[in-house]
Amino acid sequence: MPHIQLPEGLQGIRSAMAFRPETAKPLNELVEVLLHAPNSLPQADRELIATYVSYLNDCYFCQTVHGSIAAACLDDDYDLVKRVKADFMSAEISAKLKTLLVIAAKVQTDGKNVTSTDIDEARAQGATDVEIHDTILIAAAFCMYNRYVDGLDTWQPRDEALYLERGKKTAREGYVEMSKEYLPSVSSSS
Amino acid sequence: MPHIQLPEGLQGIRSAMAFRPETAKPLNELVEVLLHAPNSLPQADRELIATYVSYLNDCYFCQTVHGSIAAACLDDDYDLVKRVKADFMSAEISAKLKTLLVIAAKVQTDGKNVTSTDIDEARAQGATDVEIHDTILIAAAFCMYNRYVDGLDTWQPRDEALYLERGKKTAREGYVEMSKEYLPSVSSSS
Repeated sequence: MPHIQLPEGLQGIRSAMAFRPETAKPLNELVEVLLHAPNSLPQADRELIATYVSYLNDCYFCQTVHGSIAAACLDDDYDLVKRVKADFMSAEISAKLKTLLVIAAKVQTDGKNVTSTDIDEARAQGATDVEIHDTILIAAAFCMYNRYVDGLDTWQPRDEALYLERGKKTAREGYVEMSKEYLPSVSSSS
Repeated sequence: MPHIQLPEGLQGIRSAMAFRPETAKPLNELVEVLLHAPNSLPQADRELIATYVSYLNDCYFCQTVHGSIAAACLDDDYDLVKRVKADFMSAEISAKLKTLLVIAAKVQTDGKNVTSTDIDEARAQGATDVEIHDTILIAAAFCMYNRYVDGLDTWQPRDEALYLERGKKTAREGYVEMSKEYLPSVSSSS
């Protein structure tokens, strides 16, 4: 049961956002820019970074939401998402994404753990400065979203099928659009 | 030296925000709502929560920026800020803020570490649901800001006087207003 009186019937971060729309607005806009807006880094790669960091932080809701969106971007290959979480170095993903996941995992523990060698290896695989920046901020941001969702002890149903279905819609429409379902007041002002 | 080519002459998160104004906008709006907007929780208390979490994450820039703003809100008592970091339980702060700092410190390690006893103790000291929510989100958000600032290896000059001076202005004017200095494009659209 959530630690505070959150609106019922909404899962995970959605209940917290409906409780406090003032903070929901920038929280949705940040994830929209990082994961959904056009970017030289593929949407699937960005969702996999978010999924992997959420897995490292052991946040069921976020790793399943973003794993489902990543799967939708990857022709519904949820097995690949699971292989990335278990051992990304041997998963069938690009060498560039592997170097970015190394950086993301360092940020998850402490930003100071990122080394110039980590950055050089990402650059050697073609990563740009914006892509490196975004990887670091995605990893940092999910250290926030994960703690927010778990710190309030939000409702996180353990039914992957639910998440997979919704993931397809979020992959297409994005976070700000999907938030209008539970944040009606935002839809008129954004 | 920063890991990527950030604009020179800007400190800490400001260099990263000038590099990527698209993410700077929600990042500034989030901290504005959490730390500067009107709230039943005093501005000094919210800045102390941000400072304490940044201290636990060992982020020099954020703990000094927010410690300086907290000091400005506390009649320039930077010694009190230092006592809160060293041992908040024996510092001269309210019993309510002590219970919120306990929650914030749990969130800093993992949101799942917050217990219903922690929440009950905050409620017994008068904390409302919104105040508990905001405490959890401030703590979670600084786990992001700290990792962002350190993960990019931003320039963080070690001169407290600089931070104390600027802290007075930020305490008065807020984050979105101050960001116009280094984010000129934001000033016209916000």
